[in-house]
Amino acid sequence: MSKNAGSCQSCLHSWFDYETPKTLVIPSLGIGCVFRFAQLLVVLYVVGYVCVLQKGYQETDSIISTVTTKVKGYAFTNTSDMDPRFWDVADYVMPPQGDNSFFVLTNMVVTPGQIQSRCPELPNLSKLCVDDCDCMEGYSDPRGSGIQTGLCENYSTTAKTCEVLSWCPLEIDTRLPKHALLAAAENFTVLIKNSITYPKFNVHRRNILPHINSSYLKRCEFNRVTDPDCPIFRLKDIISEAGEDFQDMAVKGGVLGILIDWSCDLDWWAGKCYPKYSFRRLDNKHPVNNVAPGYNFRFAKYYKTPDGEETRTLIKAFGIRFDVIVFGTAGKFGIVPTIVNLGAAFSFLGLVPAVIDWLMLTCSSRRHLYSRQKVTYLIEDGEAESTPMGTSYGTQ
Amino acid sequence: MSKNAGSCQSCLHSWFDYETPKTLVIPSLGIGCVFRFAQLLVVLYVVGYVCVLQKGYQETDSIISTVTTKVKGYAFTNTSDMDPRFWDVADYVMPPQGDNSFFVLTNMVVTPGQIQSRCPELPNLSKLCVDDCDCMEGYSDPRGSGIQTGLCENYSTTAKTCEVLSWCPLEIDTRLPKHALLAAAENFTVLIKNSITYPKFNVHRRNILPHINSSYLKRCEFNRVTDPDCPIFRLKDIISEAGEDFQDMAVKGGVLGILIDWSCDLDWWAGKCYPKYSFRRLDNKHPVNNVAPGYNFRFAKYYKTPDGEETRTLIKAFGIRFDVIVFGTAGKFGIVPTIVNLGAAFSFLGLVPAVIDWLMLTCSSRRHLYSRQKVTYLIEDGEAESTPMGTSYGTQ
Amino acid sequence: MSKNAGSCQSCLHSWFDYETPKTLVIPSLGIGCVFRFAQLLVVLYVVGYVCVLQKGYQETDSIISTVTTKVKGYAFTNTSDMDPRFWDVADYVMPPQGDNSFFVLTNMVVTPGQIQSRCPELPNLSKLCVDDCDCMEGYSDPRGSGIQTGLCENYSTTAKTCEVLSWCPLEIDTRLPKHALLAAAENFTVLIKNSITYPKFNVHRRNILPHINSSYLKRCEFNRVTDPDCPIFRLKDIISEAGEDFQDMAVKGGVLGILIDWSCDLDWWAGKCYPKYSFRRLDNKHPVNNVAPGYNFRFAKYYKTPDGEETRTLIKAFGIRFDVIVFGTAGKFGIVPTIVNLGAAFSFLGLVPAVIDWLMLTCSSRRHLYSRQKVTYLIEDGEAESTPMGTSYGTQ
Repeated sequence: MSKNAGSCQSCLHSWFDYETPKTLVIPSLGIGCVFRFAQLLVVLYVVGYVCVLQKGYQETDSIISTVTTKVKGYAFTNTSDMDPRFWDVADYVMPPQGDNSFFVLTNMVVTPGQIQSRCPELPNLSKLCVDDCDCMEGYSDPRGSGIQTGLCENYSTTAKTCEVLSWCPLEIDTRLPKHALLAAAENFTVLIKNSITYPKFNVHRRNILPHINSSYLKRCEFNRVTDPDCPIFRLKDIISEAGEDFQDMAVKGGVLGILIDWSCDLDWWAGKCYPKYSFRRLDNKHPVNNVAPGYNFRFAKYYKTPDGEETRTLIKAFGIRFDVIVFGTAGKFGIVPTIVNLGAAFSFLGLVPAVIDWLMLTCSSRRHLYSRQKVTYLIEDGEAESTPMGTSYGTQ
Repeated sequence: MSKNAGSCQSCLHSWFDYETPKTLVIPSLGIGCVFRFAQLLVVLYVVGYVCVLQKGYQETDSIISTVTTKVKGYAFTNTSDMDPRFWDVADYVMPPQGDNSFFVLTNMVVTPGQIQSRCPELPNLSKLCVDDCDCMEGYSDPRGSGIQTGLCENYSTTAKTCEVLSWCPLEIDTRLPKHALLAAAENFTVLIKNSITYPKFNVHRRNILPHINSSYLKRCEFNRVTDPDCPIFRLKDIISEAGEDFQDMAVKGGVLGILIDWSCDLDWWAGKCYPKYSFRRLDNKHPVNNVAPGYNFRFAKYYKTPDGEETRTLIKAFGIRFDVIVFGTAGKFGIVPTIVNLGAAFSFLGLVPAVIDWLMLTCSSRRHLYSRQKVTYLIEDGEAESTPMGTSYGTQ
Repeated sequence: MSKNAGSCQSCLHSWFDYETPKTLVIPSLGIGCVFRFAQLLVVLYVVGYVCVLQKGYQETDSIISTVTTKVKGYAFTNTSDMDPRFWDVADYVMPPQGDNSFFVLTNMVVTPGQIQSRCPELPNLSKLCVDDCDCMEGYSDPRGSGIQTGLCENYSTTAKTCEVLSWCPLEIDTRLPKHALLAAAENFTVLIKNSITYPKFNVHRRNILPHINSSYLKRCEFNRVTDPDCPIFRLKDIISEAGEDFQDMAVKGGVLGILIDWSCDLDWWAGKCYPKYSFRRLDNKHPVNNVAPGYNFRFAKYYKTPDGEETRTLIKAFGIRFDVIVFGTAGKFGIVPTIVNLGAAFSFLGLVPAVIDWLMLTCSSRRHLYSRQKVTYLIEDGEAESTPMGTSYGTQ
């Protein structure tokens, strides 16, 4: 029993013995300087780069955003193709809801009074025909406008084309106005309301900043220099900030990104969390390496004639789609990233002595002296016993 | 040759020599305890905080989500402004597709029978005029309703205003009903179907959980306590969970977020991956520091009169936009984050002896004894040769 | 004074002293091999797994994307329910704008000529009645079609139901065609234009790759083998790639995801940044554990009769909603993740000697010899003074 207790006690004792490496102090200014300098470099890297520049001590969270938009303005058109017409928001904004993506109509090809019937195909979309044998009943040319009835009809006095079953009269979309119909759209304004949340940090922000009051909001207009916090944007300004020309873009349409960058540093000593607006054209305007440049789509308004027949006005709408894109990450001090980054850096601090030792034993002129005193070779048992090298573990 | 081979062999030999630090055992219970305690702290931090709380051993992936929504319910309105009218989904939900953002109409200002024509401006939007000189032809007041024709007309028997070219009759949007027209909308229900994917882990989930059967789905209604898994929500409940009052919000409209949190722990021993619903009003309802509070937009239904003239019914729609916002990250055991976090932690473990050494040689009462035996000062060459300090590297 | 200066100088001196552990070289091939092998394993892990496979040296950024879509094709329907009708894009795509989510109509239940009036309830939605006592005025059955007027009317010659106030005639949605009405929609094509940005790296890409020219774009069609870079997709192909049958899915509708994976390695030696398309059905088609399978919604076209009454055509639209989902992360060499990963790995390298020492002193047959020479026990003061163990720190 007493033997067991004793062995257990000695085991416990040795568990709490502290084992520390024996060290050799080398009073060399050169090596000391190199050592301290290397340590300094690592510390500087940790403090300067990881902490200050890269904010390696922060946890990050990604954004949740909601956007509402409201366009204002009206226009008046008076062209030879159409009757004089007044346009307001309900006419030119689609969809009307004011989501984060909205379309402002700037140009169009209107084909009013279409009904389900038969009419000769457009000559530019199809080959001309001579008689009915050139047309195949039921055939639908993918590049054509409808399903062939098998008849060859006069399109004009000079050209005969195959008759098709379709919405007639057919749309002639080469009749696109050279100058945008709603050129006045450049003076429309859009109010963008954006609320964001960083769920992990429970942070909510709006793009209407706390110091802005309602009366300012009613008259202000965004300007990068004088009014950078105003959430009301003139369409022309948006597009010129994106490096484009409104009138040019309005003819064939395009997609324009309104980018709101909410990169936030939520630590109390930083506390910066403001939206930064930028604007960029998102579609490719160059005709090379492209297909269907610009932005357009077709929609129809359906009517019923007094005798119950359905008729529609087909509109090929050209215009600018504005996509409000909200992005950003928030960073806030977190214990895990701090520990991970510091730990990784300390690991380099632990590497420094190994490098200095290697340098000292390889490059120093006194390397033999150093190595003789630092490094001991194992002495075989017989010799060891006779060496007066202090009390060894075994004999304790 | 034999000399080269020998040097090569010795080089190879020394490459496989194992160099280990010589250590001094200090049988002090105090220092030993401090040392073990410090090690314990680091290990506890690694196991407890990094692994258990922060799940530092996990890789993460972000979510891909798809949502379909379907509103049900009908209402009947009978006010002095409008004919009695029955409302179903096709009338009050916009857009009809059932995307992740849908709008439920609750109040409105309807202006039927508008046609492109001329009418006197509203007195509240513009200054009164006395005669035609006060009106400028072609001028369009940004706060007005159309383009001035240059005439001054009688708006009423008491007021004269400038005539404008516009959709007439003009909308009088101050006539907004004080009580929401579709007050019955609070009893509408919405079915939300949400499928998510974590592409990196190839995990697919639905908000209709596997244990839910079709018959339950047909009659259930979400309730945080009794039916937390039912994907059918009563609009009134959504809004009261967000801390708002439906009837109050319905008058001027607003934006309401239905947040679905899919934070998932995909490790087999956890296997938790359920949606958590929460609700939050996303727009700012307070009139201070705000502009255009509530949520409204204008849209029009276009008609043609029997004689072919276009007429429209303009609707200024007030209502609640519901944004279904799906977010979350999935975590799953990954070897790289585990190694990185453990490595960083071990780096702290390696720091413990350095700290204990420093404490021992600075604060301990027997520090001179310890330092004398732990630390050796370099002995200059002359002296070193004469010391009987065991076989040194150089003489081997 | 001179004493102070001296102590300061000695303090400074000792600050630049270099303290290095004394080591014992053990010329054992076995231990040396194990040591080098363990080091090799750690290095292999760092190089092979962290760097090559997991790209632990990279910073990552998440994607910003914009999508435009354009559907092409037309169809002709000739069923007993409806007049022969020609369908083009403006008729079957909703919403028309070409956003990242678009719906293609494939089947429908049309209820033309609805007006606000009274009609007997459908027998399948409600109980039959015998006389007016069975109907309650003002009651609205949630499963019914309108608000009861309190009368019991003949629905047919054999059945009497309660009269309701609603849009009449009521929709009979059990009359859904067994075969999709717009079966021809399988041959429609969709052009998807997708531009992405990685804001942190200022990288912009399009899914129309630089080597593709406009003439190819006009005639190509996506095929995973022969044309993997063509951005024009045939609807039938999309759906068969998702493992579904178009005609089957077209009857009741569904949601189909077009997933574009833009995972990019932006390092110059990799430079891979191409879109990878995949397709997956996102809704649950199985009727078990489901509610309202398929995808449908109701919308109405509003008309006015010559005498000014509002009438509408209600359409319950079944079809396929295509959701273009763009995801991916970009990685690029970054100094912080490199340092963190290398640091964590080096921390393991520092662990290797500790493990080898433990093995050597526990398992080796010569462990007593090793421990005797490696480990020194602290010698109590009295003894220490008399030991000729070289110049100690204290006596310097």
